[in-house]
Amino acid sequence: MTDAPDAAAPSAYTGVETYSYLGPAGTFTEAALRLAPQAQGKPWKPVNNVNEALADVTSGRSVAAMIAIENSIEGGVTASQDALATTPGLRIIGEYTVPISFSLAVRPGVALEDVKTIAAHPVAYGQCRAWLTTHLPGHTHLPATSNIASAGSLFDEGLRVDAAITPPNIRERIQVDVLAEGIEDNKTARTRFALVSMTTTLPPRTGADKTSLIVELPEDRPGSLVQMLEQFATRGVNMSVITSRPIPERIGRYRFVIDLEGHLHDARVADALRGLRRYSPHVIFLGSYPEADGTPVQVEGNDTDEHYAEAEAWLASLERDPDGLG
Amino acid sequence: MTDAPDAAAPSAYTGVETYSYLGPAGTFTEAALRLAPQAQGKPWKPVNNVNEALADVTSGRSVAAMIAIENSIEGGVTASQDALATTPGLRIIGEYTVPISFSLAVRPGVALEDVKTIAAHPVAYGQCRAWLTTHLPGHTHLPATSNIASAGSLFDEGLRVDAAITPPNIRERIQVDVLAEGIEDNKTARTRFALVSMTTTLPPRTGADKTSLIVELPEDRPGSLVQMLEQFATRGVNMSVITSRPIPERIGRYRFVIDLEGHLHDARVADALRGLRRYSPHVIFLGSYPEADGTPVQVEGNDTDEHYAEAEAWLASLERDPDGLG
Amino acid sequence: MTDAPDAAAPSAYTGVETYSYLGPAGTFTEAALRLAPQAQGKPWKPVNNVNEALADVTSGRSVAAMIAIENSIEGGVTASQDALATTPGLRIIGEYTVPISFSLAVRPGVALEDVKTIAAHPVAYGQCRAWLTTHLPGHTHLPATSNIASAGSLFDEGLRVDAAITPPNIRERIQVDVLAEGIEDNKTARTRFALVSMTTTLPPRTGADKTSLIVELPEDRPGSLVQMLEQFATRGVNMSVITSRPIPERIGRYRFVIDLEGHLHDARVADALRGLRRYSPHVIFLGSYPEADGTPVQVEGNDTDEHYAEAEAWLASLERDPDGLG
Amino acid sequence: MTDAPDAAAPSAYTGVETYSYLGPAGTFTEAALRLAPQAQGKPWKPVNNVNEALADVTSGRSVAAMIAIENSIEGGVTASQDALATTPGLRIIGEYTVPISFSLAVRPGVALEDVKTIAAHPVAYGQCRAWLTTHLPGHTHLPATSNIASAGSLFDEGLRVDAAITPPNIRERIQVDVLAEGIEDNKTARTRFALVSMTTTLPPRTGADKTSLIVELPEDRPGSLVQMLEQFATRGVNMSVITSRPIPERIGRYRFVIDLEGHLHDARVADALRGLRRYSPHVIFLGSYPEADGTPVQVEGNDTDEHYAEAEAWLASLERDPDGLG
Repeated sequence: MTDAPDAAAPSAYTGVETYSYLGPAGTFTEAALRLAPQAQGKPWKPVNNVNEALADVTSGRSVAAMIAIENSIEGGVTASQDALATTPGLRIIGEYTVPISFSLAVRPGVALEDVKTIAAHPVAYGQCRAWLTTHLPGHTHLPATSNIASAGSLFDEGLRVDAAITPPNIRERIQVDVLAEGIEDNKTARTRFALVSMTTTLPPRTGADKTSLIVELPEDRPGSLVQMLEQFATRGVNMSVITSRPIPERIGRYRFVIDLEGHLHDARVADALRGLRRYSPHVIFLGSYPEADGTPVQVEGNDTDEHYAEAEAWLASLERDPDGLG
Repeated sequence: MTDAPDAAAPSAYTGVETYSYLGPAGTFTEAALRLAPQAQGKPWKPVNNVNEALADVTSGRSVAAMIAIENSIEGGVTASQDALATTPGLRIIGEYTVPISFSLAVRPGVALEDVKTIAAHPVAYGQCRAWLTTHLPGHTHLPATSNIASAGSLFDEGLRVDAAITPPNIRERIQVDVLAEGIEDNKTARTRFALVSMTTTLPPRTGADKTSLIVELPEDRPGSLVQMLEQFATRGVNMSVITSRPIPERIGRYRFVIDLEGHLHDARVADALRGLRRYSPHVIFLGSYPEADGTPVQVEGNDTDEHYAEAEAWLASLERDPDGLG
Repeated sequence: MTDAPDAAAPSAYTGVETYSYLGPAGTFTEAALRLAPQAQGKPWKPVNNVNEALADVTSGRSVAAMIAIENSIEGGVTASQDALATTPGLRIIGEYTVPISFSLAVRPGVALEDVKTIAAHPVAYGQCRAWLTTHLPGHTHLPATSNIASAGSLFDEGLRVDAAITPPNIRERIQVDVLAEGIEDNKTARTRFALVSMTTTLPPRTGADKTSLIVELPEDRPGSLVQMLEQFATRGVNMSVITSRPIPERIGRYRFVIDLEGHLHDARVADALRGLRRYSPHVIFLGSYPEADGTPVQVEGNDTDEHYAEAEAWLASLERDPDGLG
Repeated sequence: MTDAPDAAAPSAYTGVETYSYLGPAGTFTEAALRLAPQAQGKPWKPVNNVNEALADVTSGRSVAAMIAIENSIEGGVTASQDALATTPGLRIIGEYTVPISFSLAVRPGVALEDVKTIAAHPVAYGQCRAWLTTHLPGHTHLPATSNIASAGSLFDEGLRVDAAITPPNIRERIQVDVLAEGIEDNKTARTRFALVSMTTTLPPRTGADKTSLIVELPEDRPGSLVQMLEQFATRGVNMSVITSRPIPERIGRYRFVIDLEGHLHDARVADALRGLRRYSPHVIFLGSYPEADGTPVQVEGNDTDEHYAEAEAWLASLERDPDGLG
């Protein structure tokens, strides 16, 4: 149940198409990477935390990294947001969500009534509290460094571990019996992951896209945020996420992490970004990419590309006579 | 003091550059036409009312017409606004303001103490009430059809008129004595006039321009007007005039007569018009033209053409790498 | 066809309940006064213009005055708006609309083919132009000081008038024949009148009310008007009229004449006024009164008095425990 | 290095004034509790997670609980936000921030060059990565259940731990040597904690207060959030935090966790809450309480209590005459 800080030797990943992720193999982050079509069949590199993953990308050691950006069981969300706000050139090129579910795994042949000591990552342990209190009231918790290390410890005789809390697909990796599935308290929890790269080529528009931004306000006063959001509202652009975060160096100033519905290639999104660029002292474009759930964006009112093209044609028509009076 | 309904024979004005105005010669409308450089040295046609003036323009009999659009002493403002809202193709190509001031004119040799009967257009008469009450308390009012006809009546012996209320420059036209100038009650009144044409060539941008619009709202509910005005505010476009007017055929629906600061060739104005075209079910562009008073438009914040160009360049830069990952 | 400047002797109107209006008897303004229930059976005083009417009210000579505030055929709208903006204490206590329609009146026995000279107030004459051009192409116009004076001139033998343009009810006053009714060009024109007083008692709420205001903006910049209008929109208050008017003494500054749907006793209107008072450097409350057309105000969303009361009760409930921890 | 699931027997905490916190003693959460004046000298109860802490409060076993609400090193932020959104009656009565800093502790006499194995909570371990890579490149990580359990493990001979990552004040509890302080990668990290209770008595207004809310939008469309925020902007209320969170049961619907500057007893905050209650289908008031940093709230414009009182007085003055006309 120990873990070397750099288990993966960087030299193994010098080829062009390596993908970094929070390891070891078997984590929820790896499950997210399995959902990214472009990563399949390429070398994958497990790393220890978000900063290592992003350093692989900015240095060119990897073409992309999968990082958690919301509700992560494996930590790192704040680090992800801060890294995206401060590392120039990073782009989100895909979004994936993974349901967070846990199983109780044992060595083959061990029965539930024999379980006394349970190995588990502390956060995973905290999320299975209700099930454990009901079914194993007198157990002892032995912490593990990851949701995979917990299962590995079942076979470390020195540790005397009887059961482990593991991801649902643990039997693909380790020969264990699963005594119970879905033991997590919150059955609807999902973690949202982003595939991050240094490219400036955008994923093609699919009609079910999202655009991520980080925006600062010009001043801290009532109405300043409203005016910024009007840049979206007047273009018919809907938001799915907004989160204020204090700017560390500047007391009382905030940046906003924002997800818009739509793609930079949607006329209304491009127009909103033009307005935002003028309004805000600092805008970071983090990318346009397909939404994890593929729900097509509903554009209400007069804000489709056709409406934008019609308005542009109307504007041009206002001046079409070259021989007028002047 | 009679007046034929069509004093001016249309046949006299078939040449290309005729300008129509509310006559007869000597009106404040004619004074406005003297301020329009392009009209100098061209034939001018006096007409009886705004509708005749605009009909001259739409039929091609005149290239342009001068009409009052605000605070007119000579009437017709409502007719002007309604005509602009319902006559396709009309454009304002210039704006002029004329101070409204009156003189008391008499036949040469007549003294103030001899004045018993005063000829005056009823509206002009109403605007000189205070002076007349003070200086000529026992007088009688004889109505005239125009501010020029009043002066003409001094020489109609059948009418026994002793004095006339006239525009300040009356001695250019008629041999009268002026007993008093500036007899109007309100010393700051000005009338705003527009020169109207059928051209789609815009007057060049001067930096002190105005853009006139008529806009309908998509629905009648609280906040509907605010949303429309946000199309201006988010682009940094200021308004100098807004007036709601009920749409005759549709109870409870309004159109808005709006003057913006700036020219269609200002990036922020063009962008606001694009947004307005999408938001509103009906937008009429009435023209961009130099302001009467020539006050340069102050553009605050980040809304100059340079800021718009910078935002456009930034947007383009977001996708400049052709060999990225995708 | 002459008209003494002060035809009505003030001494006749010293009783408490006199109502002033733009005379003479028979004008559209008088027709509006007939619609005001509280004025019936009381002395009415015809005056020469809006300023005289309002001076009667501010001096206490009359309890109220009827003045035109929109689209007036008889002039004075601008004077009305300016007077309301600058005379402290004036209140609108009722609104009335009168359709503007004209008849062609003659002495009994005169036929249409005999009509050569037509007496008419110049504005009325302008509004019947199309009918006159069609039916009486060769006529001559003799101006009159009012729509009643025109009819009176039929019997002034010195004037040789054959016909007069008059209001529709002219036969109630003068023994004439009416050759044609509805000869006005615009069949839908109505003038809006206000009954103005010095009271601070509001007319009771009817559910079909209007509130009139004059408001200044704190500064002249894009978005300043929008922010003011948000004070209405956030309270669910709809506007039926908005008109910008330059403030004479201050270049580039505007005041706004506004009509809201609803009564000061509606919670949403009172709340909007509180907000407006804080936002604006100068707000004039001109009154809450029944709408001329009696259309009940539709309150959408959560902005009824019941919703306001519920929100107030909710707010109080947030602190109801007197023995808490603190 | 084992940990019983319910180390603290509830029976020990039946007195009235118990405070629950995420234990064991020595955590950053306990450090936050030391900052709450009302908790000093009262029994404190360490619990295992946020849900246990809040269950103590809702059941009455404790009068209040300290929970992390932002940037927590010890986890539980998401659980805190979800619990506040779904547990009726919870109120925040105080806010506290604690700097997050770590030390490297050893048994007395152990030197840095002897350190091979380091016990650390996995999240703390991740936050000291850079220092460890530089100073102890060949070490092994042994996970611990808490930042205190790591230090305890130094004395568990079976574990062969050489050093532990601990909070800065570890020597108050355990007899260790501290080899290095401030070994965290991010020197400015702070965790924000809230003291939560079931009271409806508000902490008194201090002038440096915050009000926390959870608000739902009436519909998911562009502009819906802006309209909600206008309820704050029109009252001059500034926000310091806004975070959108999907509502689990309803796809595409969001709730917003919001912190306002000011206290419910500030007129502008109360007025904004009234408006919010009408606009939103669901508002949860989480409390008004002193800000952690005690920065006085700056109220700009006309939004002080005095301005609100003046506006109320003005409104009352509009109707003060009892003998008016009506």
